[in-house]
Amino acid sequence: MRQTHLFTKTHKEAPSDEQAKNAQLLIRAGYIHKEMAGAYQLLPLGLMVVQNIKQIVRDGMKDLGTNELLATNLQRKELWEKTGRWDSATVDTWFKSELQAGGEIGFAWTHEEPIANMMVNHISSYKDLPVAVYQFQNKLRNEARAKSGIMRGREFIMKDAYSFAATEEQHEDFYDRCKNAYLDIFERLGVGSDTYVTFAAGGAFTQFSHEFQTVCEAGEDVTYISKEKGVAINEEVIDTADLSALGVTKDELEVVRTAEVGNIFNFGRQKAEEVGLYFDDEAGNKIPVWMGSYGIGITRMMGVLVEKFADEKGIVWPTSVAPYQVHVVALNTDDAEIRDWADGLYEALTKRNVAVLYDDRDARPGEKFADSDLLGMPYRVVVSKKGKENGTFEVIERATGDVHHLSEEALFSKFSQ
Amino acid sequence: MRQTHLFTKTHKEAPSDEQAKNAQLLIRAGYIHKEMAGAYQLLPLGLMVVQNIKQIVRDGMKDLGTNELLATNLQRKELWEKTGRWDSATVDTWFKSELQAGGEIGFAWTHEEPIANMMVNHISSYKDLPVAVYQFQNKLRNEARAKSGIMRGREFIMKDAYSFAATEEQHEDFYDRCKNAYLDIFERLGVGSDTYVTFAAGGAFTQFSHEFQTVCEAGEDVTYISKEKGVAINEEVIDTADLSALGVTKDELEVVRTAEVGNIFNFGRQKAEEVGLYFDDEAGNKIPVWMGSYGIGITRMMGVLVEKFADEKGIVWPTSVAPYQVHVVALNTDDAEIRDWADGLYEALTKRNVAVLYDDRDARPGEKFADSDLLGMPYRVVVSKKGKENGTFEVIERATGDVHHLSEEALFSKFSQ
Repeated sequence: MRQTHLFTKTHKEAPSDEQAKNAQLLIRAGYIHKEMAGAYQLLPLGLMVVQNIKQIVRDGMKDLGTNELLATNLQRKELWEKTGRWDSATVDTWFKSELQAGGEIGFAWTHEEPIANMMVNHISSYKDLPVAVYQFQNKLRNEARAKSGIMRGREFIMKDAYSFAATEEQHEDFYDRCKNAYLDIFERLGVGSDTYVTFAAGGAFTQFSHEFQTVCEAGEDVTYISKEKGVAINEEVIDTADLSALGVTKDELEVVRTAEVGNIFNFGRQKAEEVGLYFDDEAGNKIPVWMGSYGIGITRMMGVLVEKFADEKGIVWPTSVAPYQVHVVALNTDDAEIRDWADGLYEALTKRNVAVLYDDRDARPGEKFADSDLLGMPYRVVVSKKGKENGTFEVIERATGDVHHLSEEALFSKFSQ
Repeated sequence: MRQTHLFTKTHKEAPSDEQAKNAQLLIRAGYIHKEMAGAYQLLPLGLMVVQNIKQIVRDGMKDLGTNELLATNLQRKELWEKTGRWDSATVDTWFKSELQAGGEIGFAWTHEEPIANMMVNHISSYKDLPVAVYQFQNKLRNEARAKSGIMRGREFIMKDAYSFAATEEQHEDFYDRCKNAYLDIFERLGVGSDTYVTFAAGGAFTQFSHEFQTVCEAGEDVTYISKEKGVAINEEVIDTADLSALGVTKDELEVVRTAEVGNIFNFGRQKAEEVGLYFDDEAGNKIPVWMGSYGIGITRMMGVLVEKFADEKGIVWPTSVAPYQVHVVALNTDDAEIRDWADGLYEALTKRNVAVLYDDRDARPGEKFADSDLLGMPYRVVVSKKGKENGTFEVIERATGDVHHLSEEALFSKFSQ
C-alpha cells in the first residue's frame, strides 16, 4: 500500500491520559485510536495485525477439527441465572441494560452459557460427541480500572473455544490436544520460548486451571518459573501447588512478571447439568456433557507483542503478524528517475506477493526513517540516489538493525515467497 | 466438509415464538440459533454465508480505495451530546449502561460520531482529503419490537462506510461512485434486477436520502417503483417528491413491499461542525469537512436472500453466497464400493477447489434429500448404486429443479474453477 493512500498519521505524542506503553506506541503510530480507557478503535494497520493474529489462531483451531461460529453480545438474564453467574455480586464485570420491550439484558463477557444452551438443540446422543466450536468475539467487561492499554480492555477481541464430550477420556483428549495447539500458536506468534503452561486457580470444578503466561514486564501476573524444567506456577497458587509432584523446589523457581495470553477451564459435567445439556449414552441413560473452555486474548496478544519487542525507537513486529513485511522508503523523490525506480520496486515486489508498505510521501529522510522505526515493519528497504548509482537497495532488519546492500535480484529472492 | 463433522442438526420445526420465515428456515436448517427476539447466534453454515456476503461487499469497498477499520461498541456520552444524539428522546434505540468507574456509556447503534471524532487526529489539511473508511461492525439497537427474524435485529452486522471531503465536488464524486459500487454489490449478491436506488426522507441536512430497496414480500417498507424507468420512491416521501423531475407520474408507479438493504446519508458539513472536524484550505482557513455515511445490512441481506428465493422445500442460496456450491449426497452407503466412490468424488472435487458439503451420514434417502433441499446449496450431486452402474452422477440444480446425469469428467468440468 502506498502510504499516501493511508489516512492515518503518526504522532510525536500519545494522549496524556494514556499510561500503557503498548497503547502509547500503537496510538502514536496510528494503529489504534483511544475511544475511552479500555476501548480502542482498530485503525487500518491495527486491524491488519489483529487479522494476522486471528488467522494464526484460526489455523490452529481448524487443525483441531473445530467449527467456527459467532455468538451474540446480547445475553438473556434467565440463562445466566441458571448457573448463578448473573448476579453482579458474583460476576462484577457485567454491563447490563434495560430492554425497551421489558426486562433486563446483559452484554457478553464470556460465552459458556449461551453456547452450551445452543448445543441442547444439536447434541442428543453419544454419537454427536465429541464436538468443539470456537469464535472470535468482542467481549465487553465493566472493568473498574483500565490502565493497561489494549492488554486489559473494557472491550476486546477474544478467541474462545468450547468442547463437549461424552466421557472423561474424550474430554481429556481434546483438552490435551488444545494445549498443544496453543503452544504451536504461541510459537508462530513469536513468543513460543517465553510462554509457559502455568498452574493457576481452578474455579468451580478443578483444583487448578491452566493458563498460558508470556514473560512480559507489563504483565499483570507474577509467575514462578523454571525455564529449564518448563514448569510455571501462578503466584496465586504457589503455596498450594504440589511442587514435588512437578519435580521442582520453590528455591529453584524464578519470579517473573507475565501476561496471561490464554487459558483453559475444565468444567467437568457441572456446567452442562446447570444449563440442561444432556446426551443419551449407549444404554439410553441421560448423562450431562463434559465441557471445557479455551481462550486466547487476540487484542491482548497485540499489546503483549508491542510490550515485549518494542525498543526506544518504536514498535518491532514479529514477521508473522506484521501488517507489511517490507517498508519501502523512497528518498530523493524530487528526482523523477529515483521516484520511478521506487515505484517500480514497489510494484515488482507487490506483484511477487510481498506485502509492502511504500513510503511515497514528500517528506524529509529523517521524518521517514523515524516513522518507519515507529511503525515497525520487519524490513526497511531504502531507495535513494546513492543506491541508484550503485544499483543497490539498503535493507535494514528492524529487530537487529542489521544492514545489507542488495541488488534488485537479491532483494526479490530474499522476499519472494 | 463432511456432514458428519458438522455438529448442527436440521429440525422439522422452528421455535414456536419465531414468526419470520427467514429465521424459521435458517433455524430449522441449523444456520442460526435464536438467542432472543432479534439476536441470533451465527452457526458454522450461517457464518459462512455472512463471510461470503462480507467478502463481496469488501471487494466493492476496496475498489473504491477505502481503508477498513473497526470501531468500538462502547460509546462516550460526551461525544454524542455534542451532536444532540445522546438523549433517548431523540434516539430511541440506545442501549445504555452504568460504568463501574463512574458515568454512563452507550452501545453503538451507528458510528458517524466516533469515526468523525477519530479523524480529528488524522485530517488537518486539504491535502489529507478526500478519504473514506469502512468497517463491518456489530450494531446494537434497543428495538421495541423484533419480529422480522434477522431482517431487523437488536444485534446485527452492518457494513458502514464514512466519507470525508474538502469540497462539495469531492463529496459528490465519492457519493456517486459509492452509489454505483452498491449497485454492483447487489448485482453480485443476486438481487441486482430487484434492487432500486430509492428516494427517502432525508434527515437533518438534505431533503431526500438514498436508500437501496429490494423487492421482498417480507420487507418493512412500501415503495413506488417504475421498473421500466428505474425510478423508486419510498411511500414516506411520495407526496413530497417532485415526480415530474423524475420523469414519472404517480399513476404509472407500481406499489410493492421492499426491504431496505442499503442507505446513503449526506451530512453536508453539519456533522463535522458539531464534532469539531476541520481542515485548513489552501489559503489557511479552517473549514468543516463534508461527510457522508453509507450502510449495507449484512445479516439483513442474508434474511432478504432467504425470503426472496426460498421455496416450500427450503432455502435456495444464490451461488455467490452459498456456503458450499455442491452438496454431494451419497445413497446406498452400506455398500462399501459406493461409499468409496462417493468418498473419492468428494476428495476429487475438494482438490479441484470446489466447495463441497458431503452428506456421508448413515441416513435414509428421503431424509437426506429433505435436508439437502432445506439447506439450499446451488447443486446437489447424488451418488448411488444405480448411478455407479451407469457411470454417472445425478446433478440437480436447486433453484430450477433441472436434472442432468453427468460423467465424472463432465462433473469436474462443470464445477472446476
